Amino acid sequence: MQPVLEHFGVSVGAITGVLAARGKQVDLFGVIVLALVTALGGGTLRDLLIDCPVFWTLDQSFLINATTTAVISFYLVRIRELPRSVLLVADAFALALFTVLGTRKGLHFHLTPAIAVTMGVITGVAGGVLRDVLVGEIPLVFRREIYLYATAAFVGALICVLLAAVEVAAAWSFLGGFSATLLLRLAGIKWRMSLPIFRPKTVDLGP
Amino acid sequence: MQPVLEHFGVSVGAITGVLAARGKQVDLFGVIVLALVTALGGGTLRDLLIDCPVFWTLDQSFLINATTTAVISFYLVRIRELPRSVLLVADAFALALFTVLGTRKGLHFHLTPAIAVTMGVITGVAGGVLRDVLVGEIPLVFRREIYLYATAAFVGALICVLLAAVEVAAAWSFLGGFSATLLLRLAGIKWRMSLPIFRPKTVDLGP
Amino acid sequence: MQPVLEHFGVSVGAITGVLAARGKQVDLFGVIVLALVTALGGGTLRDLLIDCPVFWTLDQSFLINATTTAVISFYLVRIRELPRSVLLVADAFALALFTVLGTRKGLHFHLTPAIAVTMGVITGVAGGVLRDVLVGEIPLVFRREIYLYATAAFVGALICVLLAAVEVAAAWSFLGGFSATLLLRLAGIKWRMSLPIFRPKTVDLGP
Repeated sequence: MQPVLEHFGVSVGAITGVLAARGKQVDLFGVIVLALVTALGGGTLRDLLIDCPVFWTLDQSFLINATTTAVISFYLVRIRELPRSVLLVADAFALALFTVLGTRKGLHFHLTPAIAVTMGVITGVAGGVLRDVLVGEIPLVFRREIYLYATAAFVGALICVLLAAVEVAAAWSFLGGFSATLLLRLAGIKWRMSLPIFRPKTVDLGP
Repeated sequence: MQPVLEHFGVSVGAITGVLAARGKQVDLFGVIVLALVTALGGGTLRDLLIDCPVFWTLDQSFLINATTTAVISFYLVRIRELPRSVLLVADAFALALFTVLGTRKGLHFHLTPAIAVTMGVITGVAGGVLRDVLVGEIPLVFRREIYLYATAAFVGALICVLLAAVEVAAAWSFLGGFSATLLLRLAGIKWRMSLPIFRPKTVDLGP
Repeated sequence: MQPVLEHFGVSVGAITGVLAARGKQVDLFGVIVLALVTALGGGTLRDLLIDCPVFWTLDQSFLINATTTAVISFYLVRIRELPRSVLLVADAFALALFTVLGTRKGLHFHLTPAIAVTMGVITGVAGGVLRDVLVGEIPLVFRREIYLYATAAFVGALICVLLAAVEVAAAWSFLGGFSATLLLRLAGIKWRMSLPIFRPKTVDLGP
């Protein structure tokens, strides 16, 4: 079951990577790279930080999935628009999945709670951050919080860790964190909730 | 003593990360990420390159410190301006500390001199570079050298390695590199010293 | 023989890094960092992903070579323009070399074909991508494909892996991939070939 979910998440990540190329004069290769970075970037950073083998270097099906999805999307989006609402829900699903997989992997490697939560958030969010940096934009997730994106990941990872701490079965910790992230993200979109914006008094640090 | 200094450096790094969010429409989550990246980014990159466990994955107090500092700063800077001179001196202190800690760690892992110096400079400077890339700016440290920032790190790391090579006690190598970086940076600010700027004859490489 | 080629590639990478600083108000330190990132970035990312020691942390001659090249170039390009055609050919040579070295290293670590090809492309291309991100531009290699840059790396890496799969001697796999990348890149420049550009129907994913 888990591999099927993971591949679904990777495909969704690849599609959002392809869509980030809009209006950027990016060619087919660039689109594939953006898809790979978005789909695999979060898990890659997590594995480097945990110091375990990077997941896609052990199983080439992830690379092949993301590349194939990117090429198909590249041509498909020339023909017709993708329905925005389907994409948003699929993306929320992928966010929830990656976050909980990352958190569980952190727990599996015996990291302490705060670090496991961080690994979860990184797995869920870092792919999109890298994608935005590559196309030269301030990462979307930093700005106006796009309706509780990272916050949903944080809360879900936290619930996942808390449930694991009270020693429920792994499946419940997984499901709890997953549902929390998914629902919070969908609620955020539905009711346009966001975090407070940074509005400091002026101070000039540089140079 | 060293943990106290390290946590001081992490706090200062977190504050400069928060301040980089000025004028960028970044929200609370973005501010926390910028704080974490600035405070922990240099040491993280160093540990990945050395291929040793990333320091903050072994001790969650660094994560907690940087996050707490970021949240407090987020609200504090709404109320009042931070005094610029205090920040500049604290930042110079953190630069010197991180540089020497990075250099010493490189020596500890038996890296050759040029590589240990590079690890020192990376530890001191890379957090700020990553921060600037995330907010979509050319890293401050590349431009006009902001008064001997990286150069101070380089000279301090070099002195640290040279003192270690003549086999003085580790504490002296530490103190020598630390003082050199701190003093050079403060002198750079005071007398507005900087490196020569790149002014090539025109040549067009691309595409 | 191989070390000589590698150092040639590192020098060429360093020079293209220096030239990326044009018109950016970057100083000597920034130029050195850009040179190091361009020359060593691809191999560094590859080694992190493979989870083997980063090549330049074992042999400081690479760091010294790239730094020296950067400093010399920094002053040289003030005096006279570099001949563009020589640079393009040298850069194509470095691309081919890095790509094949990366692919062979992937095979050496028993990675599966798709992953070894990816390692080859990363080794050839990632240094330039990091360089462009640091100077705040959308990576050149994503846009208009600058005449089959990444595509040449991909085809060369593929040929290298295919030749290895039919168990010819390593030297032939090396030479086959190298020649394919070099010739395809030079042909791309000569006849201004490029990949199709991404032109989607409009769809707005965010926020």
